[in-house]
Amino acid sequence: MTTPPDCIPCFLRQALEAARFATDDPALHNRIVLQALGAVAAMDLSQPPPAAIQTIQRLLRQTTGVDDPYRDAKQRFNHFALELLPECVAEVRRARDPFTAAVRFAIAGNVIDLGAKGGLGEAGMHAALRRALGEPMAGDIEAFRRAVAAARQILYLADNAGEIVFDRLLIEQLPTDRVTLVVRGAPTINDATREDAQTAGLPELVEVIDNGSDAPGTILADCSEYFRRRFQAADLIIAKGQGNFESLADTVPGIFFLFKVKCPTVAAQVGRPVGSQVLWRSPRQKNASQSP
Amino acid sequence: MTTPPDCIPCFLRQALEAARFATDDPALHNRIVLQALGAVAAMDLSQPPPAAIQTIQRLLRQTTGVDDPYRDAKQRFNHFALELLPECVAEVRRARDPFTAAVRFAIAGNVIDLGAKGGLGEAGMHAALRRALGEPMAGDIEAFRRAVAAARQILYLADNAGEIVFDRLLIEQLPTDRVTLVVRGAPTINDATREDAQTAGLPELVEVIDNGSDAPGTILADCSEYFRRRFQAADLIIAKGQGNFESLADTVPGIFFLFKVKCPTVAAQVGRPVGSQVLWRSPRQKNASQSP
Repeated sequence: MTTPPDCIPCFLRQALEAARFATDDPALHNRIVLQALGAVAAMDLSQPPPAAIQTIQRLLRQTTGVDDPYRDAKQRFNHFALELLPECVAEVRRARDPFTAAVRFAIAGNVIDLGAKGGLGEAGMHAALRRALGEPMAGDIEAFRRAVAAARQILYLADNAGEIVFDRLLIEQLPTDRVTLVVRGAPTINDATREDAQTAGLPELVEVIDNGSDAPGTILADCSEYFRRRFQAADLIIAKGQGNFESLADTVPGIFFLFKVKCPTVAAQVGRPVGSQVLWRSPRQKNASQSP
Repeated sequence: MTTPPDCIPCFLRQALEAARFATDDPALHNRIVLQALGAVAAMDLSQPPPAAIQTIQRLLRQTTGVDDPYRDAKQRFNHFALELLPECVAEVRRARDPFTAAVRFAIAGNVIDLGAKGGLGEAGMHAALRRALGEPMAGDIEAFRRAVAAARQILYLADNAGEIVFDRLLIEQLPTDRVTLVVRGAPTINDATREDAQTAGLPELVEVIDNGSDAPGTILADCSEYFRRRFQAADLIIAKGQGNFESLADTVPGIFFLFKVKCPTVAAQVGRPVGSQVLWRSPRQKNASQSP
């Protein structure tokens, strides 16, 4: 998607939150917000929102000299998620339909988002997971199940640290020998990198690669050539989170997006309210609209 | 107060909302948000927040060619408030302490705010007024009562259209021959001007003047010399709304501010949560902190 003006206040809110995450120095908070203002004023609004966030996060890292301001938070979320995991594994096993239960957990894990305003911390995470199996989930789970069964090469685009632990529940329901997990190429907000995949124990289950980019989404032109080849070769792409949705949904057909709707702009695009758990397939035709 | 970085995302959100208020043209929405970005990037953060909003609102009027984008909304709120007024008048009369009841209504009327995110429309307005007499109100009502009794020249700085109708309830409890009501010098967001004071029937009760400024607050340096003289001469100033609070609270001592707390920054300053009804007196000493 292109960047609507609604994203602009949100970029600046996020820049300030990120600045406060990275440093306690109020002078730096001001400087980072002003840098973000400049970056947003200069940005190309035909790019998807993660492009602007990528630029702002780079400025943040440069200005603070902190190469991964969210490292501690990411580890904290991973460990908290790992503590909850056995309970969730048991619940998936007990479920009448373990595949659907795992999809629900993977989507519920997407509450962990230190970028979005609707993203929650540890307390919200536990509550969201408790509700996960009961809440309605928009989307055609049977079409997703069929696509998984038919696919030979599945690319699973991860989103955030912490969340990636719950992705493991769904990945365990997939034909793991045909699955490749993709993480970001470098730290950006609390997005998952190789380190987080490792912490979640995923390299023992599936191949793990990175996309070569530090955008909090999948901006193909910014990804490595190797990743782009794998992306082209895959016959099923599963993409977690709004960042992946924003960067791929209206340009690449047939992707299954799994996410919690976190802002009114995306809510309008998928036709579901903020807070919804959504399994959404990008339309076969570019830029066509489709309800989940 | 100076402008903290927290206000910057809010300025842009407000610019977009205002753009959508003034025109249906998405190209203009984009242009206005980008103009606002430029204006905010160039602004002096040592000025209070209403200074930035003043600039953005001027850009909005220039770009859209609409001199008062909120005119219809202001009239709608005035008329809706006038419909509710008889019920409120009766409630003030019935109250054991009509002065306190009127203060509560005047503060509750401050929910009408198309600038603040916490500001509500017509539905919220009715609900807020219904709750007004029951909700806790922070502040020293007896000190306020004594200040009113002792004052010879009272300046009552109005805030928004619609809200100004409920100010009438409080003004009727004041010694009206010693009260001057002050409105903005020109339209800005939904702030009250002479037209709104007229609709509320206030010129029949008290002297009405304007401050000569189109800022959504009281930036003394931007006000007319006549207003500044009156401001200096007054021995009691009653100021409604966050805009007046933001522009006067830490520079002019002894003002009684009446408002609903609408954002975390102001909440931190007055030590009351967002949504609180507050009667807050600015400290006798510049920049000293004081709880209500």
